[in-house]
Amino acid sequence: MEDYPSVLLEQAVDELSRLPGIGRRTALRLALHLLREDEHRTRQLSESLLSMRQEIKYCKKCNSISDADLCRVCSNPMRDQHSICVVEDIRDVMAIENTAQYKGLYHVLGGIISPIEGVGPADLDIDKLVQRVRNEDITEVIFALSPTVEGDTTNFYIYKQISDTGVKVSSIARGIAIGDELEYADEVTLGRSITNRVPFYAGSQ
Amino acid sequence: MEDYPSVLLEQAVDELSRLPGIGRRTALRLALHLLREDEHRTRQLSESLLSMRQEIKYCKKCNSISDADLCRVCSNPMRDQHSICVVEDIRDVMAIENTAQYKGLYHVLGGIISPIEGVGPADLDIDKLVQRVRNEDITEVIFALSPTVEGDTTNFYIYKQISDTGVKVSSIARGIAIGDELEYADEVTLGRSITNRVPFYAGSQ
Repeated sequence: MEDYPSVLLEQAVDELSRLPGIGRRTALRLALHLLREDEHRTRQLSESLLSMRQEIKYCKKCNSISDADLCRVCSNPMRDQHSICVVEDIRDVMAIENTAQYKGLYHVLGGIISPIEGVGPADLDIDKLVQRVRNEDITEVIFALSPTVEGDTTNFYIYKQISDTGVKVSSIARGIAIGDELEYADEVTLGRSITNRVPFYAGSQ
Repeated sequence: MEDYPSVLLEQAVDELSRLPGIGRRTALRLALHLLREDEHRTRQLSESLLSMRQEIKYCKKCNSISDADLCRVCSNPMRDQHSICVVEDIRDVMAIENTAQYKGLYHVLGGIISPIEGVGPADLDIDKLVQRVRNEDITEVIFALSPTVEGDTTNFYIYKQISDTGVKVSSIARGIAIGDELEYADEVTLGRSITNRVPFYAGSQ
């Protein structure tokens, strides 16, 4: 056990090291950095974290993080209102938005079904998604969850609840990343990329 | 540029990514983690950082971090009041205290002389150290700074100012770490460990 020279320092290290990926050594380095900097820097950090936590909203429609009742995507009339891309969290929305290749709406589940981590369907925002598919004029649902057992389970769970609506259900393409060398691809990805091969001209677009 | 779905989230990411070693991706992960956790967690983190920054004190004697006017070492009458170990920052004090091998006092410089980073002698707590050596009943000063050009420069700068007092000046031993293999040691360390070889029985203690 480290013996901290100050209870105030130790408490700050305790709190910082609760964050994911931050060990006690890193936490101490961060705390000492704040002590070396102007007091207003620490105040800005503290206040921005607290006001984010207290004031941030979740879009009433898609569950994405937002400053208003509806997020920027849902409130944008230029977006295609007939397709929903289902993602795990807001980082996936940001990643897809960065590609500028998708013009539809999103639905943020807030996680994926994972019995090991105790996450069941009820913990996710699945009911609202099913309601949206049934009540809004949706023609396509695109699954963009992680290509893991948990992601596939979640996709299938949702699929079962919406398959009777006749909506088109698709999944983002999995395959060898552009620029990757075949020999370094894992077997599952390589296998799927052969099974799900695409016509040459479509694939080269 | 990432397009954040919320200004509050973006501000929190901005502030977190100012911390050393925290990039924008990590900052986003930390912010989303706080959003998933209870609000009181974020409040505890914010408050502990701010109260640390606002209320922490520096020992009037050795400049170490403290909750009182004098740090735990300086206010402990059981410590040897005649030797001072000169260190760069509080982490070095904690590391040496953890060994339980040193029973004297410390002096925390708050950095080392580094022209490249614009740190001169006036930016460090050297004057107070010189005053302590002259006014307190000090018999030994132990340098425990980094074994770099900057550390050696700082050692020498301090040495010049206290050498006339007749105080014994020493430096912590440099050499091959216990458990390290010779062939992987860098040349400078290996060279110094031969130059500064110790009598066999003293070294095996």
